[in-house]
Amino acid sequence: MVCYNRGGGGGVRFGAIFAGFWAMPYWDRVAIVGVGLLGGSIGLALRERNLARHVVGIGRRMETLRTAENRGAITEASTNLASAVADTELIIIGTPVQTVVDHVQQVAQAAKSGTLVTDVGSTKQSIVEGVDRVLAGPLGLWTSFVGSHPLAGSHRAGVEFARGDLFDGKTVVVTPSQDTKADAVGQIESFWQALGANVVRLSPAEHDRAVAATSHVPHIVAAALAAATSDEYLPLTATGWADTTRVAAGDVELWRQILSENRTHALAQLREFEKLISAFAAALERGDEAQLAHLLQQGKRQRDAVGS
Amino acid sequence: MVCYNRGGGGGVRFGAIFAGFWAMPYWDRVAIVGVGLLGGSIGLALRERNLARHVVGIGRRMETLRTAENRGAITEASTNLASAVADTELIIIGTPVQTVVDHVQQVAQAAKSGTLVTDVGSTKQSIVEGVDRVLAGPLGLWTSFVGSHPLAGSHRAGVEFARGDLFDGKTVVVTPSQDTKADAVGQIESFWQALGANVVRLSPAEHDRAVAATSHVPHIVAAALAAATSDEYLPLTATGWADTTRVAAGDVELWRQILSENRTHALAQLREFEKLISAFAAALERGDEAQLAHLLQQGKRQRDAVGS
Repeated sequence: MVCYNRGGGGGVRFGAIFAGFWAMPYWDRVAIVGVGLLGGSIGLALRERNLARHVVGIGRRMETLRTAENRGAITEASTNLASAVADTELIIIGTPVQTVVDHVQQVAQAAKSGTLVTDVGSTKQSIVEGVDRVLAGPLGLWTSFVGSHPLAGSHRAGVEFARGDLFDGKTVVVTPSQDTKADAVGQIESFWQALGANVVRLSPAEHDRAVAATSHVPHIVAAALAAATSDEYLPLTATGWADTTRVAAGDVELWRQILSENRTHALAQLREFEKLISAFAAALERGDEAQLAHLLQQGKRQRDAVGS
Repeated sequence: MVCYNRGGGGGVRFGAIFAGFWAMPYWDRVAIVGVGLLGGSIGLALRERNLARHVVGIGRRMETLRTAENRGAITEASTNLASAVADTELIIIGTPVQTVVDHVQQVAQAAKSGTLVTDVGSTKQSIVEGVDRVLAGPLGLWTSFVGSHPLAGSHRAGVEFARGDLFDGKTVVVTPSQDTKADAVGQIESFWQALGANVVRLSPAEHDRAVAATSHVPHIVAAALAAATSDEYLPLTATGWADTTRVAAGDVELWRQILSENRTHALAQLREFEKLISAFAAALERGDEAQLAHLLQQGKRQRDAVGS
């Protein structure tokens, strides 16, 4: 039985008892900086599951925030980060990966003592190292940060596509470093579990190496495959091409930042992939049917292991 | 207004009038050699749309044919090709690409005069050339062949996954050669249109070059991507990886044959793809953000042009 008591500030703080044996965390005020697909879905999930009384959405454009408010993802909207986070207990940074460290610094300067901060960025090593540097000083005395990456993205961006059940049954990787406070890790894990997710704990470097293989290189490959298809052949594409290239429709600037942040691991994994492509090319060139079948079988085995 | 009158043999032959202006072809006896996903879907579509009175399924295993019969995809089952096709007007070869020419030869030897034959193979040049050689002799006097490729496959094989609406709104490429009889082309195009498909006419070589880009290289890439993902990272895959690698679950032997038949075009297209992967690798290595964004943009543009 877990019951959080986050010190400082007013508001209701208790573990609401569900099904008699499981304590759900409850927050009086949560702030979401960057209310896009992920930030918006967190807001919707918090509201639908009665996990937070107030959800403050923070962004640059009031229009986007109004959309989030109309969809029920946030209860308040603000374009002023410092004032909006001043009285919150939990802050989620939902902005592009290369802006996360800066936003953590800003909220740490403005938030009250005991504030817990997490993010949803697709890369973790540079973010966690950057935040550790920021919180190594006095700011770290009253703010805790735990890096998170929900494996629940989409090629569709924006709060319009947010869903309260986006994290249901999905995996969220939580990436503490040596400097991360242990109780903060537990609280962030409970936060994601309360949203329906399964939590996996990895080091930031382990996370980045894994997602290079499961997400970043697949994105590069999908983009290269789409780009290699001439205009004249596009009308002859069917579901196979559409599936294989789907993620290439993702936002270019978001993905440029992700690949740039994780370039070392992405490059290493891309080299592994290139070896297999070369092996396919050699088998085709030589007319080596046995090797062709072997390579296809290797791919099928890994794909079948995951299921549809 | 099209109304077919295929000579020879008994049975009902008329164009049923739909909506008062469109003549649908109607067949008394259709044979399907190889009742898998595509063959089975053709049978279901013919029956559901009242386009054929009898649909004879021909295969090696009576068990599979019984499944097809129970699903309503065929009205008769036979493991004896020669006797089963003797009295049919239209024969669809639904077997793996490297067996199509041989099956066309067998049905041409057994079928009655005026029989029309098509296939559903994913490659066309070697099939059409092979059939042209077979039908250059006396067999060509009473049998016509038109190569077809419905762009409606799936990584799921077998009649269990057949659907009567599989071709609805899908593209079917029809690939006549210099030797193909013009009236046979028109009849096969009407056949596919009656099943709900949009017909595109390409030469066999044009077809094979196009599908190398839209289907065969995507398959290689999906297999390589899946094979390049270590077991330890599979639990961290999400929808992006699942989409990008989905086709790699396809039948290994079917795909070995397809890639082998189309190896020249597949290899040429694979080289184009490799250039883009090398460009991505170089951009990552140099930390060239502008080039990274440019490459991602190229992929997004082609992907967005197709839509979800």
